[in-house]
Amino acid sequence: MSSVYAQANDMVMLISQDGKRFYIRLRPGHRLHTHQGIVEHDQLIGQSLGRQIISSTGHTYVIVEPSLDELMKEVKRKTQIVYPKEAGRIILKLNIYPGRRVIEAGSGSGVLTLALARFVTPGGRVYSYEARLDILQNAQANLEEVGLAEAVEFKQRNISEGFDETGVDAVFLDVREPWRYLAQAKAALKGSGFLGAIVPTANQVSQLLIALKTYDFGGVEVEENFIRDYKPVPDRLRPKDVMVGHTGYLIFARSVAPNAFPEPRPRRRVGVVEAPEEDL
Amino acid sequence: MSSVYAQANDMVMLISQDGKRFYIRLRPGHRLHTHQGIVEHDQLIGQSLGRQIISSTGHTYVIVEPSLDELMKEVKRKTQIVYPKEAGRIILKLNIYPGRRVIEAGSGSGVLTLALARFVTPGGRVYSYEARLDILQNAQANLEEVGLAEAVEFKQRNISEGFDETGVDAVFLDVREPWRYLAQAKAALKGSGFLGAIVPTANQVSQLLIALKTYDFGGVEVEENFIRDYKPVPDRLRPKDVMVGHTGYLIFARSVAPNAFPEPRPRRRVGVVEAPEEDL
Amino acid sequence: MSSVYAQANDMVMLISQDGKRFYIRLRPGHRLHTHQGIVEHDQLIGQSLGRQIISSTGHTYVIVEPSLDELMKEVKRKTQIVYPKEAGRIILKLNIYPGRRVIEAGSGSGVLTLALARFVTPGGRVYSYEARLDILQNAQANLEEVGLAEAVEFKQRNISEGFDETGVDAVFLDVREPWRYLAQAKAALKGSGFLGAIVPTANQVSQLLIALKTYDFGGVEVEENFIRDYKPVPDRLRPKDVMVGHTGYLIFARSVAPNAFPEPRPRRRVGVVEAPEEDL
Amino acid sequence: MSSVYAQANDMVMLISQDGKRFYIRLRPGHRLHTHQGIVEHDQLIGQSLGRQIISSTGHTYVIVEPSLDELMKEVKRKTQIVYPKEAGRIILKLNIYPGRRVIEAGSGSGVLTLALARFVTPGGRVYSYEARLDILQNAQANLEEVGLAEAVEFKQRNISEGFDETGVDAVFLDVREPWRYLAQAKAALKGSGFLGAIVPTANQVSQLLIALKTYDFGGVEVEENFIRDYKPVPDRLRPKDVMVGHTGYLIFARSVAPNAFPEPRPRRRVGVVEAPEEDL
Repeated sequence: MSSVYAQANDMVMLISQDGKRFYIRLRPGHRLHTHQGIVEHDQLIGQSLGRQIISSTGHTYVIVEPSLDELMKEVKRKTQIVYPKEAGRIILKLNIYPGRRVIEAGSGSGVLTLALARFVTPGGRVYSYEARLDILQNAQANLEEVGLAEAVEFKQRNISEGFDETGVDAVFLDVREPWRYLAQAKAALKGSGFLGAIVPTANQVSQLLIALKTYDFGGVEVEENFIRDYKPVPDRLRPKDVMVGHTGYLIFARSVAPNAFPEPRPRRRVGVVEAPEEDL
Repeated sequence: MSSVYAQANDMVMLISQDGKRFYIRLRPGHRLHTHQGIVEHDQLIGQSLGRQIISSTGHTYVIVEPSLDELMKEVKRKTQIVYPKEAGRIILKLNIYPGRRVIEAGSGSGVLTLALARFVTPGGRVYSYEARLDILQNAQANLEEVGLAEAVEFKQRNISEGFDETGVDAVFLDVREPWRYLAQAKAALKGSGFLGAIVPTANQVSQLLIALKTYDFGGVEVEENFIRDYKPVPDRLRPKDVMVGHTGYLIFARSVAPNAFPEPRPRRRVGVVEAPEEDL
Repeated sequence: MSSVYAQANDMVMLISQDGKRFYIRLRPGHRLHTHQGIVEHDQLIGQSLGRQIISSTGHTYVIVEPSLDELMKEVKRKTQIVYPKEAGRIILKLNIYPGRRVIEAGSGSGVLTLALARFVTPGGRVYSYEARLDILQNAQANLEEVGLAEAVEFKQRNISEGFDETGVDAVFLDVREPWRYLAQAKAALKGSGFLGAIVPTANQVSQLLIALKTYDFGGVEVEENFIRDYKPVPDRLRPKDVMVGHTGYLIFARSVAPNAFPEPRPRRRVGVVEAPEEDL
Repeated sequence: MSSVYAQANDMVMLISQDGKRFYIRLRPGHRLHTHQGIVEHDQLIGQSLGRQIISSTGHTYVIVEPSLDELMKEVKRKTQIVYPKEAGRIILKLNIYPGRRVIEAGSGSGVLTLALARFVTPGGRVYSYEARLDILQNAQANLEEVGLAEAVEFKQRNISEGFDETGVDAVFLDVREPWRYLAQAKAALKGSGFLGAIVPTANQVSQLLIALKTYDFGGVEVEENFIRDYKPVPDRLRPKDVMVGHTGYLIFARSVAPNAFPEPRPRRRVGVVEAPEEDL
C-alpha cells in the first residue's frame, strides 16, 4: 500500500480515541464490529489515510497504514519466543533483500516469516519449515492475513531429514537444539551463505558455538539486543519503568571452507580491565 | 549478488588469516594490493564464495559476500553519528520496503542511505538532502561504491526551504534541530506517513516532542537501542568488556489529521512502582 | 545480630516451602499466624539460624537472618520511588561510614534511611527531613521495626526553611525539585561534603545541573544503575524476561569553594564516534 | 576523617585545574611533587576542605576528602577483575555492617577488601585469603595506604586447605573455580550465613549453581550490574559514548540445612512471553 488513500484489499489499522487498535484487510461489503460501534469497510475504502472516520455510534477512529513492526506485534501466537525487536537486526545480519532465498525453521508464529517475506519480495522466496502442523497452519494464516503468503513456502517437516533447497543465501534456526541441524543447514547454504539462530539460554549458545566450529562455520558473532522505551512527555522525559530484559541470544555465522576464517586472535590481556576512557 | 560464484561487478570481502578485511568491487584486469601480497581480480571472478584463494606472496584469503551490516560499518565517514545498530530498527519502524518513497536529511556518511536504498529497491526511491556539498559527495561516493546509488537522488539543499516531493511514505531527520523542519516534513508526507529522527541529547528529544504535538504528529514513540556483543568462546562465554553506551535517541511518529490520535492515557499510578513480577 | 542462634529482639525471616516470606522481630510470648499454621516466637528464640522449624499445622519453615537488601524491599511504602538497587551505590558515593553525619530529605518510605542508619552506626547520625507527617511517621515506624531508629532524627519540615545542622558530611535530596534547596544544602555541608540526589526525569537532571553550577558544587556526576536478574538454573541459564527499566537518575557533587573544581575539558572530538576497540 | 579541616594522617585528594588527581596521606614535613609544582603537606594540614591552595609554581589545587568509591578506583592493581561498581551491591547482599566477620578469597588488588574493611569497622574483621604472596602484599599495601589495614587479617593460603575461622557472617569468593571451595565456605559460615561470588563467564555461573545445590546453599540469586554514566552538561544531557559492558556475574546464596529452602517454583508459562504492560 503506497497510495495516500485506503484501497480495497489494503491492510489498515483503526485506532479508537481510547487507544484500542483494530487491524483489518479492507473488503467491499464487510463491516467491523467494535466496542464503539460498527465501521463499514466501504466507508474506509477511498478514505484519506491519517484522517478520522466516525463509527455507527458516533465514535471517532483514525485510519492509518500499519508498519511491519506493528503487524509483527499483532500476529496470533502459538509459540513462546517473540522477537519483533530482533527482526530488523536479523534482516541486516543475514543480508536479506529482494530476490534472496532464505530458509527458516521453525515457522513459530510467523513473526520473523513476515519480515523475511516482506524483504525478499519481489523475486525471492522464504522456505519455512515447521514440524507441528497446528503451528504451521497458524503461521500460514498470519502470513495470509497480511498479504505476504505468496513469497513463502511452508513445509511440514522434521528438519533432521534435511532441507529440499540448495544454494540458499541464508538459513535461520529458531529451534530448541540448533546444533543438531548444522549439517543440514550447510548442505542448503551457498558458499559464504549466512546462518542465524536465536536461543534463550547461555548453555545453548555454548553448545551451538562448539558445533559451528565442527561444521566449519566462520565469522561467528553472538549478541543481545535491547530496546528501552521512553514515555514521550516533553517536560517529564524518562524511560518506562519496566523493560523486556531478555528474549534470546542471537548467533550469526558464515558457511565457509574448512579453516577458511582466521581464528579469533589469542587473548592479549596483560594488565587489568580498565574502564573505558572518558569521552568528552 | 545471489550467485554462488563471485562475478564481475560484485562487491566482495576478502579476509586475511590475520583478520584484515578488504572490500572490493570486482573489475576484470584490476588488482588489489594488500599487506600480504597482490590479489588479481581475475583470480576472484568465477571463484566459489566461501573458499580460499592465495595471494602473490602465498598468503591465504577467504572470499565472502559482505552483508549490508558489514558494508555500513565500512563506509568512509565524514560525520559523527554512526548507527548501523539502529538501521534495522529504522527500516521496520518507517515501514520501508520495495517500492516505497522516502526522504532523508541529512545524508551524513550515507550509512542509513545504504539501508534505505537497498530496501526500497526495486521500484522505490530515496531522496537524500544535505546542505554541505563535501558531505553529500562523500555519501554519494559511498553509495556508488557498493552499487546502490541508482535508487538515490542526492540534493544539496538547506531543508528549511522545503522538500521537492509530496506524498512520500516516510521522512527521516538526522539533523541537529529536527523540530525546525516539521512543517516541511508534514508537507512532504502522505497521510499516516512515517516520521523518524535521531538526536544525541535528551534536551533535543524534549524539544522535538513539543514540536511534534504542534504539527499534529501522532503515535509518538521514543526509544534507545543497545547491542551487547559476546566473545564467541564456548567454554568461556561472556560479554565483551566494553560496549557502545550511546549513539542517539530514536523518535518515531505519524503524520495525521489534527487531534486524530488518542492522547496518551493519564497517569493512573496509585501506589508505588513495584519491581515486575518474577517470571519463572 | 551476629550470633548463630536467633535471639529475643532479633529481626528474622521465615520462609515457607511455598516461598512466602515473613519478617518478624522476636518477642517472648508472641506468636506468628501464617497461611500454614502458627509459629511461636519462643519456638524460634534459641534456634539455630539456617535450620527448619515446624508450624502448628506441621508445615516447614526455614529461619534465616534477613539482609539489609531484603529488609529494604520489605518496608511498607507510602511513596513512589523505590531504589534498593541504588542504595549501595549511594552509600559509596556519599562516603557513608560509621561516625558520619548525613541529612536526607525527604524521608520517603525510609528505604534509604535504613541503609544510611545502618552504615553511620555507631557514632554517626541521620537527620531525615520530611514535610508530610503521615509519610514521616510511616518511615519512622519502618526504622523502628528493624531496630535502626536510634541513629535517626526525623524532622517534619519544609526544607526551604533550611536544615538545623551544619558541617555534615553528606546531604541526599530525594525531592521533586532538588534545585530549590542547594543553598540550604550548602549551608549544612562541610567543605568538600558530598551531595547526592535522585530524580526520575531527564528534565530534572538538567535543571539540577544548572543549579549545581550556580551554587558552586564541583565534581558533578550523573549516572543510571541497572540490575539484571538471571534465573538460577544451571543447565538453562538465562536472564529473566522482564527487568526494571528505570527508577531514577543519580546525581552526585561536592561542596567546594567558587571555581575550585576544574571545568570539564572541552569537547575534543575530531572525527567520528567509533565503536570501542574489540577486547580479547 | 569527619573534620572540616584536613588533619595529619588524613587521606586527602588534590585536584589540579587540568583535572589531575593526587591521593595523599598527610604527614608533617612531607611534600608532594606534581607536574604543576610542589605542595607541602604542612600547607594542607589545618586547611579547610573544599578550598583551594597554591603550589610552589603558583598553580591552583582544590583539596577534598576522597570517597570510598574514588579510593577503590585508585588502588594499584595486580589482578584483572575490577569491580568498584559491584562493591556497594556486595556490601548490601552479604549484609555487611560494623561488627561483622567476613572472609574473602582471593585478596586480589584489595578493592573489595577496602569496602569490607570500612564497613565491618568498628568491631568486625575481614579475613582475606590469597595464594600468591606478591598479590597479597600489594593488597595489604593498598589497605595500609588508605588506613584500613587494621580491620584485615591477610593470610597466604591455598583455600582448598580450608579457612581458619568458623561462624563467620559472610564469605565472598573471587577465585577462578569457586565451586571447588563450597565445603570450606560452608564449614566457615554460620547458619544462614551469606555466600557471594563473582565470575566472568556464564559457564562458571552454571558450574557454581550445580555445586551450590550439592552443598545445600539456598536462596540462590544471579545478577549483573550496570552503571551508565552521563555527560553532566545541562543543555546537552546524554549518556557517554562507551560504557563498561561486563565485569562479572554476581552470585549470592545462604548456608542452610539440607532442603531447607523452597525449590524455585516450576515453570508455569502457558502462552507467550508478552512485553510488559505499558506504564503511564
